[in-house]
Amino acid sequence: MSTATSTPSPVRHDEAWFASRAQPGVRGLRAYDPGHDLVALRARFGEAGLLELGSNENPYGASPEARAAILDQMHALHRYPDPLGADLKRALAAKHGVDAAQILLGNGSHELLMQLAQVFAGPDQDVVYSRYGFAVFALATQCAGARAHVVEALPRDHATMPLGHDLDAILAAITPATRLVYLANPNNPTGTWFGRDAFATFMSKVPAEVIVVMDEAYAELADDGDTDVASGLPLLARHANLVVTRTFSKAYGLAGLRVGYLLAARGLVAVMERVRESFNVNGPALAACEAALRDESHLVWGRTRNREQREQLAEALQARGLRVLPSRTNFVLVDFSRQDDAARTVQVEAALIARGVVLRPMAGYGLPEYLRITVGSQSENRALLSALDDVLRS
Amino acid sequence: MSTATSTPSPVRHDEAWFASRAQPGVRGLRAYDPGHDLVALRARFGEAGLLELGSNENPYGASPEARAAILDQMHALHRYPDPLGADLKRALAAKHGVDAAQILLGNGSHELLMQLAQVFAGPDQDVVYSRYGFAVFALATQCAGARAHVVEALPRDHATMPLGHDLDAILAAITPATRLVYLANPNNPTGTWFGRDAFATFMSKVPAEVIVVMDEAYAELADDGDTDVASGLPLLARHANLVVTRTFSKAYGLAGLRVGYLLAARGLVAVMERVRESFNVNGPALAACEAALRDESHLVWGRTRNREQREQLAEALQARGLRVLPSRTNFVLVDFSRQDDAARTVQVEAALIARGVVLRPMAGYGLPEYLRITVGSQSENRALLSALDDVLRS
Repeated sequence: MSTATSTPSPVRHDEAWFASRAQPGVRGLRAYDPGHDLVALRARFGEAGLLELGSNENPYGASPEARAAILDQMHALHRYPDPLGADLKRALAAKHGVDAAQILLGNGSHELLMQLAQVFAGPDQDVVYSRYGFAVFALATQCAGARAHVVEALPRDHATMPLGHDLDAILAAITPATRLVYLANPNNPTGTWFGRDAFATFMSKVPAEVIVVMDEAYAELADDGDTDVASGLPLLARHANLVVTRTFSKAYGLAGLRVGYLLAARGLVAVMERVRESFNVNGPALAACEAALRDESHLVWGRTRNREQREQLAEALQARGLRVLPSRTNFVLVDFSRQDDAARTVQVEAALIARGVVLRPMAGYGLPEYLRITVGSQSENRALLSALDDVLRS
Repeated sequence: MSTATSTPSPVRHDEAWFASRAQPGVRGLRAYDPGHDLVALRARFGEAGLLELGSNENPYGASPEARAAILDQMHALHRYPDPLGADLKRALAAKHGVDAAQILLGNGSHELLMQLAQVFAGPDQDVVYSRYGFAVFALATQCAGARAHVVEALPRDHATMPLGHDLDAILAAITPATRLVYLANPNNPTGTWFGRDAFATFMSKVPAEVIVVMDEAYAELADDGDTDVASGLPLLARHANLVVTRTFSKAYGLAGLRVGYLLAARGLVAVMERVRESFNVNGPALAACEAALRDESHLVWGRTRNREQREQLAEALQARGLRVLPSRTNFVLVDFSRQDDAARTVQVEAALIARGVVLRPMAGYGLPEYLRITVGSQSENRALLSALDDVLRS
């Protein structure tokens, strides 16, 4: 045994020290805010007593085919997943009419959005995105140590698309230092969107050297003949500088499995493949997503129910004197302030949490007047409205 | 419809163009080589006809408790996983006698090893690791754009630990530019290890500013009272610059779910949390790993069987005139060359693949004379030896 005198002092470092040793982008980074601690709330209210409308999850759940595919994988948990994700990529390629080499799988689209900045943006390079754009855009930019150029959104009193992306202003913000532009269509948390013609014009004006990333996490909820909501997919063949990201977390009801993907030019995918961890998508997830793609009727059913319920919920909220922003997603952004004073919003949110109703506060987005409400099933929405009536009355 | 004359030319970029726009580290990066395309081989031989001994998977599979935990999650696939992973971290903290704030969960330890370099190493900074060290060390260093300082391993004819880490040489390689040192104990693909005293001495000499990452992917296969194999765990309280990574992919037989974790000082974990994607570990995986920790008897049983089978396999290979490196893992590194000519190794590997026997070629590690053989179950090892006898005879 060594004696106290011969033992060197223990090494102690705190968070500030480790941050000082971190790369420049990480020093100023704050982690993504996933919202309330649902595990704690479930323990408090019981799972059945909690109304979870804060995370834009699909109340109709996963396809039974996806669940069956996971059962088929239970004997093989000790095996590494297919590092190529070949079967799922083949199914996605067939669905979207692209080559499998144009697809990259991610551990959620979150991972892909982070890695796009990691690969294509760095110190002294600019990333452009809209204020109130998806939160991961800012995180990815900061983590890469790149400069964020945040473009003002359309005004709050805009006639058709309040808080939406201002594509003209985004175009005007592009400079020779710009490497990446992040768009979301429809956008989370605003619910807003832009149309096909506007996007085609936008892409025709973006310099070919600038990579445009279009996050379409909610696209499957809008694409039932909805020509108002632009998708990047039809433009991929024309614009090698366009990247589309999609997810199985929303319309497919598979948020727990973490699968997203991107579609882009082969060359971009090949470069991103260098950074991808070879087993980044887990085995049950690969099987479940492939199966979910085969169950189109489950997707269509959920989309139809969601649209009905979204319209009913928006009307019911408006009937209570609340301002509801337009949405083509499975959530609505609702203004609970009084004369733009956010105090009532904070009170309403706290009172709902006390009743076991979880919505998403928006202060972290710079929108403290608003709450984001996931469109639930009919019974969930009724329970929400009933709790809300209680709260607004008191 | 726009006419052909008014349409700007399509944008075309190839991989070389995208690479030219990528950050410096990515330009020189090549993706991890996961070995043979097992999906294709399974299609060719049938799953039952293929002998998969290339990926160091656990032939005894996952604990039944882990499978049961996944079944319990099947109704909640549409929910995001707990972003804090609180239950699993609590269980790990209790197991290892640390605070939950000292634990970070990863989508496999691969993700954590990559992010350690992403956070703590960059251009003009050095990362030190041993030749023949785990492949991800080189990838992580290159991806971060840092400089790799590869230290020569112990010589091939070393009396006790051929190709093992040379801790003295690693110490000597540390300079003021060094930010990170990667070690693996036991190491993959060599199977070699170093002991407690050697590691304690090493840590006492490493400057406090240098972060030492000790990958212990195979530790649970050696820790049955095996004091020869050093772990970083007992030294964490003394050395805030020490990080230990572990995985559920090996001894726990859960490679398909992608869960690794690191143990370190609270401050380091807090900084790494900024970079972690909030839902990086999937829902079924969180539940399965927590359950697997409760089933210690499954772990012990697999470890015991593995040790027996490794010793029998090594003896059988040596009896066939082959040189087998020492191992405390679930694989052995075997020299199939003739007078250091790798041609026979290549032939043997090809002949085994033609018979549906998958081992891991080592040319990518700069060890073309060797094949890495996963220790299978008794029947798998017998089938391997039988196929090998066929091949060596012809």
